[in-house]
Amino acid sequence: MVRGVFERFGFAPIETPAIERLETLQGSSGEEGDSLIFQILKRGGDLQRALGDYAAGGGIGQLSETGLRFDLTVPLARVVAQYAQEIPLPFMRYHIAPVWRAEAAQKGRFREFGQCDADIVGSSSVLADATIIQMIEATLIALGIDRFKIRVNNRRILDAMLNAAGVPDDRHIPALRALDKLEKIGRAEVLDEMTVQHDITLEAADRLLEFADNATDNGLDALSDLTDKAGMDELTQTLELVGQLISDPNHITFDAAVARGLSYYTGNVFETTLLDAPGIGSVMSGGRYDGLVGTFLGRDIPAVGVSLGIDRLFSAMEELALTSTTAKTAATYMVATLTEQQIPYAVIVATTLRAFGHNVYLYPDVVGLRKQLGHASTLGIPLVAIVGEEEVGARTVTVRDMNTRTQRTISLAELI
Amino acid sequence: MVRGVFERFGFAPIETPAIERLETLQGSSGEEGDSLIFQILKRGGDLQRALGDYAAGGGIGQLSETGLRFDLTVPLARVVAQYAQEIPLPFMRYHIAPVWRAEAAQKGRFREFGQCDADIVGSSSVLADATIIQMIEATLIALGIDRFKIRVNNRRILDAMLNAAGVPDDRHIPALRALDKLEKIGRAEVLDEMTVQHDITLEAADRLLEFADNATDNGLDALSDLTDKAGMDELTQTLELVGQLISDPNHITFDAAVARGLSYYTGNVFETTLLDAPGIGSVMSGGRYDGLVGTFLGRDIPAVGVSLGIDRLFSAMEELALTSTTAKTAATYMVATLTEQQIPYAVIVATTLRAFGHNVYLYPDVVGLRKQLGHASTLGIPLVAIVGEEEVGARTVTVRDMNTRTQRTISLAELI
Repeated sequence: MVRGVFERFGFAPIETPAIERLETLQGSSGEEGDSLIFQILKRGGDLQRALGDYAAGGGIGQLSETGLRFDLTVPLARVVAQYAQEIPLPFMRYHIAPVWRAEAAQKGRFREFGQCDADIVGSSSVLADATIIQMIEATLIALGIDRFKIRVNNRRILDAMLNAAGVPDDRHIPALRALDKLEKIGRAEVLDEMTVQHDITLEAADRLLEFADNATDNGLDALSDLTDKAGMDELTQTLELVGQLISDPNHITFDAAVARGLSYYTGNVFETTLLDAPGIGSVMSGGRYDGLVGTFLGRDIPAVGVSLGIDRLFSAMEELALTSTTAKTAATYMVATLTEQQIPYAVIVATTLRAFGHNVYLYPDVVGLRKQLGHASTLGIPLVAIVGEEEVGARTVTVRDMNTRTQRTISLAELI
Repeated sequence: MVRGVFERFGFAPIETPAIERLETLQGSSGEEGDSLIFQILKRGGDLQRALGDYAAGGGIGQLSETGLRFDLTVPLARVVAQYAQEIPLPFMRYHIAPVWRAEAAQKGRFREFGQCDADIVGSSSVLADATIIQMIEATLIALGIDRFKIRVNNRRILDAMLNAAGVPDDRHIPALRALDKLEKIGRAEVLDEMTVQHDITLEAADRLLEFADNATDNGLDALSDLTDKAGMDELTQTLELVGQLISDPNHITFDAAVARGLSYYTGNVFETTLLDAPGIGSVMSGGRYDGLVGTFLGRDIPAVGVSLGIDRLFSAMEELALTSTTAKTAATYMVATLTEQQIPYAVIVATTLRAFGHNVYLYPDVVGLRKQLGHASTLGIPLVAIVGEEEVGARTVTVRDMNTRTQRTISLAELI
């Protein structure tokens, strides 16, 4: 379903390997990101040598050269940089694959989780940002979700706020990570995280939160005193364009506290919360990252993208009763055989049903009928075609409707 | 396409994590398999402690407790064992996911590769084996491949051959691995591997190859002198049943040299070679593994399954010109905008086309028309909807057919 929406927006699929070099993964995400990486142990002789170096006083950093990707953005950026000569820009790709993060598991968040990303690489137009945001709306609507809010902000505005508040440059990312949690953990804890954990002065932290509160209460205009206008223009133009694109203006809002945790964002950033499952966190997030491809290439290539957390969204949808994990099997028919002698005919029945497009579970063992019917019921298979001695002789099938508990014997021709 | 065939046979999808405990992975595959595992480094304090133990003379085995799966069979067996109380048997599942093997890359074989497995767990009936083999045929036919051979053998027959030849029990798996390469590397090299690398006497190795040659030349009957009849019966019944199921009897054959490398197989084993791409190796392989689930559970649960090597099959299909890697984008339309002023109307055109089911690539930048048309051509997009000043005024679109290089201006209503 998501795949279909992304393709309707002109995105084509891409795949990248799960294992990347550590030098690619590290640094892309900021220090906190590095601790999320599952590192892969060197092998054989390489490991022996590394351990020798370690024993001789060398660092432990030598034990591993590769790790599992923690998102799909860094691998995409690496691939675009590596094949920059061959890839025609703008490059619009979606990527559905697992990522791994070494963090404590929580509801809807696992050590391994599926992500579905879409990115436009090679365009700095706000139309690219707006297209991505329009697609977030289209995706959620296609999934049957209507009550959600896409909250948008801009890293350049955030940087201007941080500068105006007096937060030093090297504390920007920790301050943003704390700010990002405002809705979740509240003002007191955010202040605590900024001042105690990250050594930001209380005065600066307080001013930053005032900027954010003021902007949240009074909209983007409340920030018009900030000196850097580029971020304001970018966000304003994006919101104007998005206003024309999306089906419901209530689906989008400016939110001065949205920051995103990863360090590679440079422009608009966005999160999406489901109004009926706010506890689950953001289900579709992303932003503009104009510098990341460049860190692998030496020249900047602008890019903007969105990540959908598959497991998290799935948890939320379950909570909202929009889907069920108990979808047990895709089969519409079970074929049940009563004795060994009927196996060849049962196989004909199964093959015939399959040829006419049915998904058929041919019970592989010859066991009592009651057991086979019970299994069909457990698996949620609605129809059972029973093949016994009489059916073989008459070339018929006894079809049992598991819901109505009725059955009738019909010819093979009638069956199809 | 493969998914569709598997579902038609009554299999439902399953997913398992990529990371498993080393104790689950190790031992399941035999010693050679263990060296294929990418191990994941312990983290933080655990790693510090392990390194302390190492420095104090402890083993290096403490550096890692988990690794990446090398196949999908072991994780499935682990899951079935873990949830044995809840899973209704027979359990028919398919599993499409990457696996990782630390071995030298070769054509169609990568460090990470996609596998597509289907398994029937909880049935020891030969109908289960025959269903899996029938599905191999159906899958390849669905992919447009007709010239292939499914080569079947049985581990119990192989064990009887090994015993009769005088190969000691603890050399069975290395001997089978060598025998499995007979077609690929030839008799002399197989003998060399058995005797020099694995310390099997030349007499025993020679007798084993004679058994295999004789059986390949004269069929299963040539092995009727072997004392263990259980394997003969199992294979004979399977072949008889498969003969009734498959569409072309030429698609299947007994082959005494088919052995499969992994140690967990216990009954029928099979490989599939494409007659027009023999160098690519087996594209769909599998067999019966009645003991594997039991190693995690303490009681045996019979199982049989098949693995399709996605990348390998894809390489083969490319070689056979059955598919193309240059499928560039799924979009049928590009929308090209000439100046900033036309962006809102261009968005309407794109959104309208999408609403009517088209996949639309909206060019995100306002650049020269020639550049946009060149991009459409590079991406293989057949139609470009051009939006300029006149089109906005008249609510029309100029549609350019990239193949015929003709264009005409039509109304938005006509477009859809």
